[in-house]
Amino acid sequence: MEDEFGFIRKITPKQHHQESLQEGIGDDAAIWRPIKDSEQVVCLDTMTEGVHFTRRTMSPAQVGHKALAANLSDLAAMGAVPEFYLVSIAIPPSWNENELREIYEGMDSLALQYSVDLIGGDTVSTEGPLVVSVTVIGRVENGVRLLRKNARAGDVVFITGVLGESAAGLSLLLNNKLSDDVKPLLAAHQTPMPHIKEGRLLAGLKQRIALNDVSDGLASELHEIAEPSAVSIEIERDKLPVSEHLEKFNSEQQLNWMLYGGEDYKLAGTASLETFEAMKQQFEECDLQIFQIGRVTEKQSAFVYITDSNGKRALEKKGYNHFKK
Amino acid sequence: MEDEFGFIRKITPKQHHQESLQEGIGDDAAIWRPIKDSEQVVCLDTMTEGVHFTRRTMSPAQVGHKALAANLSDLAAMGAVPEFYLVSIAIPPSWNENELREIYEGMDSLALQYSVDLIGGDTVSTEGPLVVSVTVIGRVENGVRLLRKNARAGDVVFITGVLGESAAGLSLLLNNKLSDDVKPLLAAHQTPMPHIKEGRLLAGLKQRIALNDVSDGLASELHEIAEPSAVSIEIERDKLPVSEHLEKFNSEQQLNWMLYGGEDYKLAGTASLETFEAMKQQFEECDLQIFQIGRVTEKQSAFVYITDSNGKRALEKKGYNHFKK
Repeated sequence: MEDEFGFIRKITPKQHHQESLQEGIGDDAAIWRPIKDSEQVVCLDTMTEGVHFTRRTMSPAQVGHKALAANLSDLAAMGAVPEFYLVSIAIPPSWNENELREIYEGMDSLALQYSVDLIGGDTVSTEGPLVVSVTVIGRVENGVRLLRKNARAGDVVFITGVLGESAAGLSLLLNNKLSDDVKPLLAAHQTPMPHIKEGRLLAGLKQRIALNDVSDGLASELHEIAEPSAVSIEIERDKLPVSEHLEKFNSEQQLNWMLYGGEDYKLAGTASLETFEAMKQQFEECDLQIFQIGRVTEKQSAFVYITDSNGKRALEKKGYNHFKK
Repeated sequence: MEDEFGFIRKITPKQHHQESLQEGIGDDAAIWRPIKDSEQVVCLDTMTEGVHFTRRTMSPAQVGHKALAANLSDLAAMGAVPEFYLVSIAIPPSWNENELREIYEGMDSLALQYSVDLIGGDTVSTEGPLVVSVTVIGRVENGVRLLRKNARAGDVVFITGVLGESAAGLSLLLNNKLSDDVKPLLAAHQTPMPHIKEGRLLAGLKQRIALNDVSDGLASELHEIAEPSAVSIEIERDKLPVSEHLEKFNSEQQLNWMLYGGEDYKLAGTASLETFEAMKQQFEECDLQIFQIGRVTEKQSAFVYITDSNGKRALEKKGYNHFKK
């Protein structure tokens, strides 16, 4: 890039949306005044060219969108309201300034939907592939704890949407099958939407809820609930909702994508039956999806099982690296 | 790396120091409860192998130390107390797990000196050079604003330590001149110490102070004060304190390193003469250094000048990329 200072001026927001922000981009650091009776929540997620995306599977704007979406999804899994984000980009010579601007535009257009302000970052050069890292800060009401360790025996296991679409979309992209009817699957991979609204509804219940976002695949996420909670989880194959866009694929393929595909950014969690009934009603009123897919048991701690017509089998804690040979 | 989950367990702190921390590493995001009557401050800084360091100039632990130090220095320039940090690392196959642990150990040992807690991050793989990005969060009392735009005509210009040592150290490293007597210069480059204590003293004065940390070189930093403040700054060559370790180099070389070398992580700023007198006394009491090096003028906005026996000349806003051909 010719002029780092000039580029930073171009991507610096003209206005901000969070009233708590005191100083945004332009000094050594940003300053905000926390909202009363709230706690702050922070997470960070990094995407690397060739590992998490390639130029063939994602446009620059989609890279930006997804890098921010992955972080917003982590905040959703804490029931938080996103407020601010910071961006680190290591830029190889093969990316030009227009493409870089598109990355920021992809982030900006998603950020706008949640009134999230860009308040800092760093742009550096690298001889290697592009690395983009996003830090997101948000807030949640004091004492709300939608933690993975909250699962208890007897809980209902739920998800807030269909799974597997992102992995299916990637598979189609890698195999160059880009007909019009698969556009929703491509969009699921390229511009996934975090379940912020769902997370906020769950936080609003002020109940014990275990929660995780589905970034590495359902099997892996349920393990991340089972382990710290010291419980086992059983899900039922027949209760997993199948996306209408996946109907043309065979059942084994569907299941593989649903369990191990990842990057769906829906929320998976557990709650008591009573809490689940309350959330089901609230989700219905808001026209949002929620599905019961299994139960939490105590037998044999920290296992995750699936049952189908052939019986019950344990699910491994694995996702997969889509681009690794 | 064989096992990301195993590695994260290894680098996860066994204890934390900030009482405000509610949840550290282990869930989708970290949670803390802000301290009353404080504002939050956040910044992010990224270092790339081959651009900001090489394996020849820095050990893995030094890379970790410096990546965190650069961020702590930004917080120092806001007068803030550092509280938390998050780390993103994109790891090439050429770095082994031991070296990665050393990076974290380098950060950890600096963090410990300020009771700063590691609360999140992401480790990903890359085919390119190593990229490490650190986000630091801190707090400062409500209303303290040590901003670059605070300079006013008539102000004293000051720095909180000698400059140029880091650039000299790098030059020695690159030229393989590693005798015992230059060890302080090598340390200045490899394990610089942020001026957190100095920043806190300045914040405690509760006066109008313009402040910046010297990461890109004094000339560049003074421009970053002059521009938003719409003032010009004049410094005097004879008032720039020269490190005893730089005495063996000629005056031109010294000056070049002091003005353009960067990575010294001292603080540079401006304040009224009255405020400067108060800070001088406080710094003396705490056995800390502070030097008056010039004045703020209004003539011809946003210029930075240096005067010496040959008269007055304008300084460009430039630093230099040490590793670029």
